[in-house]
Amino acid sequence: MRVIITGAGGFVGQALAKKFIEVSPDAELVLADVQAPPNPTTSTKVECIGADLTKAEVREALIDRSPDAVYILHGIMSSGAEANLELGLSVNFDSVRGLLDTIRVKKPGTKVVFTSSCAVFGRAAVKNVATETDIVPMPESSYGTQKLMVEFLLNDYSRRGFIDGRAVRLPTVFVRAGAPTAAASSFVSGIVREPVHGQESELPVDLNIGIWLVSPRTLVHNLVHAMNVPAEKFGYFRTVLLPGYTATSGEILEALEKVAGKETRALVKEKRDENIERIVLSWPGKYDTSRAKELGFADDVGLERTIKDFIASTK
Amino acid sequence: MRVIITGAGGFVGQALAKKFIEVSPDAELVLADVQAPPNPTTSTKVECIGADLTKAEVREALIDRSPDAVYILHGIMSSGAEANLELGLSVNFDSVRGLLDTIRVKKPGTKVVFTSSCAVFGRAAVKNVATETDIVPMPESSYGTQKLMVEFLLNDYSRRGFIDGRAVRLPTVFVRAGAPTAAASSFVSGIVREPVHGQESELPVDLNIGIWLVSPRTLVHNLVHAMNVPAEKFGYFRTVLLPGYTATSGEILEALEKVAGKETRALVKEKRDENIERIVLSWPGKYDTSRAKELGFADDVGLERTIKDFIASTK
Repeated sequence: MRVIITGAGGFVGQALAKKFIEVSPDAELVLADVQAPPNPTTSTKVECIGADLTKAEVREALIDRSPDAVYILHGIMSSGAEANLELGLSVNFDSVRGLLDTIRVKKPGTKVVFTSSCAVFGRAAVKNVATETDIVPMPESSYGTQKLMVEFLLNDYSRRGFIDGRAVRLPTVFVRAGAPTAAASSFVSGIVREPVHGQESELPVDLNIGIWLVSPRTLVHNLVHAMNVPAEKFGYFRTVLLPGYTATSGEILEALEKVAGKETRALVKEKRDENIERIVLSWPGKYDTSRAKELGFADDVGLERTIKDFIASTK
Repeated sequence: MRVIITGAGGFVGQALAKKFIEVSPDAELVLADVQAPPNPTTSTKVECIGADLTKAEVREALIDRSPDAVYILHGIMSSGAEANLELGLSVNFDSVRGLLDTIRVKKPGTKVVFTSSCAVFGRAAVKNVATETDIVPMPESSYGTQKLMVEFLLNDYSRRGFIDGRAVRLPTVFVRAGAPTAAASSFVSGIVREPVHGQESELPVDLNIGIWLVSPRTLVHNLVHAMNVPAEKFGYFRTVLLPGYTATSGEILEALEKVAGKETRALVKEKRDENIERIVLSWPGKYDTSRAKELGFADDVGLERTIKDFIASTK
């Protein structure tokens, strides 16, 4: 089995590559990113390449490797797509469409797993429990718009049998390792990651605001599963909300105290930022993921297991 | 006021141009189509030009005319987009995106009215009364997919203030003048148009299947109105289902008999075509257009008035 992962230098891409080799030690992986990403495994069958997927010839060379499955994880994050419309369209839409077209022409029927986002929803979803089939996506960001356009294209190409696509909408990943990002959701991981590293961290939102989260452990399990769901189980609609869970910052800090102690928890200071709070309040806090469960995706392991995993990963 | 209409050689484009000059005799109209369309008015301020909008330089020359509003009506119909994916994407998506981008760069803030379609819905809408905000669009055609992608892009560009867009979803236009088309809905106009011309016509579906229709009279009134709705009334979502009405073939034939007589009605023969019936049954038959009414769009004039209009137009 040969699997290509784009955006493989990112946090999710690296974790997915590790998981893949764990469950399929004989898999051949091609990890692609703008700059050649590190190999997070000890497998010699993992190849790491630099690939600018906005270039047609680079996409063609990638698909010439004749993959059995392609994970499309690359993209410009939400704030970047808002700051630069053309860059966002070029990377989040055109380069992905270009990949789908290259697959359609060079290796039709290939499995494609595309990571979309709950940012496809707008404020209408906030008041309700959001599902794929009951809440109309009305994105209020260029990022969400671009992800949604790809979802529909992938669905159409799959309906026509050109590819075998699966679009999975991701919750906020918690705990994300590495440096803070410019994302409004960055604090969610920050209030655990920084204290665990002995550093102070600021909580910019009310303790009682719920946020829709997914653990890296559950996410990579489900991303691998996404490839293995029989196509016919999707019916005529290839989009699925991945399982996650709602937690408030208060609950996260309670779990942190339980797992890492009072002193670690005390490193988090409340410092309200109205801009961030407004953005966070514009995200739906509750989702119904029964469709994912029908398709065999696993439930999340929840806060404590996730914080323990994170602490273990730092050692 | 200078207004550009693309796809202006089509039935709707020609009717819209006539309506425009009727309500705004001093308007300067540019009617564009692949081949220069006829001028359906007596106004000397109507210019008719051939323009292949898949070419960037043609789009630029068009927007260099500095329009106050652009009606984007051009497109490959449903069956054509299904038969040729690349042609459909090129015309229904890329050329429209290109126009929006040209407007964004050369004349930001211009009003744009884009004709979308109820084909953005899939079978999920059939069981329910469809609205813009309650029924998730899950198109089951490349045509519907391409229209939907443009809707979301137009919405995002409008949110960002690059254009002032309005996407209107059209019902099936009844009675359409001219020759039968390859569209599955072609028979709906055919069972009135052909008998009125003294010719036989076939009804391929059950008399009791309801179809969502709009009259040319109401459609062009509402297309003109689409430009005049204050932007803020749309809120954060620029898509609206245009008003229409549901009629069965049985009701259409009754109205035809009432308006044009028994002999004319007798020219329609039932000849069931299971393929066409299956497609028609996949379309939602009922819509709730209260959003359109809140935005000031007019209700349809209904069957008899529409058939009388059609007969008058043939004289």
